[in-house]
Amino acid sequence: MPNTISVKVRGYHLDVYGHVNNARYLEFLEEARWAMLEHMDLEALLVKGILFVVVNININYRRPAGLNSLLTVESTLKSVGTHSAVLSQVVKFKENGNIAADAEVTFVLLNSKTHQPMKLEGDLAQLLSAIG
Amino acid sequence: MPNTISVKVRGYHLDVYGHVNNARYLEFLEEARWAMLEHMDLEALLVKGILFVVVNININYRRPAGLNSLLTVESTLKSVGTHSAVLSQVVKFKENGNIAADAEVTFVLLNSKTHQPMKLEGDLAQLLSAIG
Amino acid sequence: MPNTISVKVRGYHLDVYGHVNNARYLEFLEEARWAMLEHMDLEALLVKGILFVVVNININYRRPAGLNSLLTVESTLKSVGTHSAVLSQVVKFKENGNIAADAEVTFVLLNSKTHQPMKLEGDLAQLLSAIG
Amino acid sequence: MPNTISVKVRGYHLDVYGHVNNARYLEFLEEARWAMLEHMDLEALLVKGILFVVVNININYRRPAGLNSLLTVESTLKSVGTHSAVLSQVVKFKENGNIAADAEVTFVLLNSKTHQPMKLEGDLAQLLSAIG
Repeated sequence: MPNTISVKVRGYHLDVYGHVNNARYLEFLEEARWAMLEHMDLEALLVKGILFVVVNININYRRPAGLNSLLTVESTLKSVGTHSAVLSQVVKFKENGNIAADAEVTFVLLNSKTHQPMKLEGDLAQLLSAIG
Repeated sequence: MPNTISVKVRGYHLDVYGHVNNARYLEFLEEARWAMLEHMDLEALLVKGILFVVVNININYRRPAGLNSLLTVESTLKSVGTHSAVLSQVVKFKENGNIAADAEVTFVLLNSKTHQPMKLEGDLAQLLSAIG
Repeated sequence: MPNTISVKVRGYHLDVYGHVNNARYLEFLEEARWAMLEHMDLEALLVKGILFVVVNININYRRPAGLNSLLTVESTLKSVGTHSAVLSQVVKFKENGNIAADAEVTFVLLNSKTHQPMKLEGDLAQLLSAIG
Repeated sequence: MPNTISVKVRGYHLDVYGHVNNARYLEFLEEARWAMLEHMDLEALLVKGILFVVVNININYRRPAGLNSLLTVESTLKSVGTHSAVLSQVVKFKENGNIAADAEVTFVLLNSKTHQPMKLEGDLAQLLSAIG
């Protein structure tokens, strides 16, 4: 089951084209990631000195979203590598399920002392699997 | 002589009305304050543990600014009180000097250890007077 | 009864001080105003060619809000003049009711054709009174 | 010769990690694109009813940028396809040329009436080649 948040598009989300601005989508994705972490023990881990750091975002802008659009952002874990993992985040129109934007977000978990990416194995891998 | 920066209005500054968004003006004002501090020894002071903290912004939105508008932001010190000071910041259209927005920004200088506002006297008062 | 929205403070809301940035508060206030209009017939009116335009924001930053703070934004109508009205918007910590920021927001309703402020009487005054 | 803009990192660009926020980089990239269009006849074309629309951004976050970092954003045309083209945008530290972030930005030129992507041939292809 994907982690899902809802966003209603407001006037300040739009830009000169009257559509949600490209950069703003990244805030929607980040909001969804914080909400996701909130529902996992991962948040506790982060507090203990593990930093969730995004290293790549590959986002497709598929359909423009305008004022009052009701959007959802679904986040699911796509894959876990040795040191990095990939989150799939999809922004849909609630009304019809059409996709406004979809992104693959690659992240690492940094040890906040050494600033080295941690191996995503054992406890960490298990925690990540809870993302769904 | 006021401290002045220039801003060209871009597509991502606008909102549903096609004008620079209210919140974005506060970023323009903050940009101008950072530029102002840069030209003063005050920046050095800040690094040494004095925090420049805004406690009130009173901003008038007078004329809408649209795509490609060339704006300036002028910052001048309006008054210095015992613990707080007031900056006047005016956003003008470069073309004709008309005012897009003007603000009074009240700030304090906090001691970063005690988190108490410092008395704006002696060295600090002198530094502030350099704002112009 | 005030119109109230909730906001959870996320990493992207913060700035160099580790607190919600001054400009971001104006987005919180705008979000609250859109939510407020949504619950009124006023939204319908706006669609019909009346523009809700903010002409002044006077905001006090009273207490810093950090990561994970749960905030509410309450909006109430403070006063209605001939051509402009004042909204009171208060950002509180849900936990203890302390005020993070409070603002008075002065707005006009513009006729989208003439771009003149409309007289806030009759139907319009009644609609505004529904803000609470 | 790449089209280049400069950005000085300010307090409001940062987030909870004390580094420039992921979404903010997209504003830096957009700023660079507007500056690029300004130096081309393409801007004139856009006014005449051609919309510059981004369909994909693939951005790598390579090194964190903190307060007072001086950055440049260089934009070069990487490739032109039948209906879409790819811009390379690199954010560097002015001091040492290290890369903070780099992105490939795929865009189309939409006919503002039909909302169809235009073929990037003839005049349009020539204009794009002026990006450098």
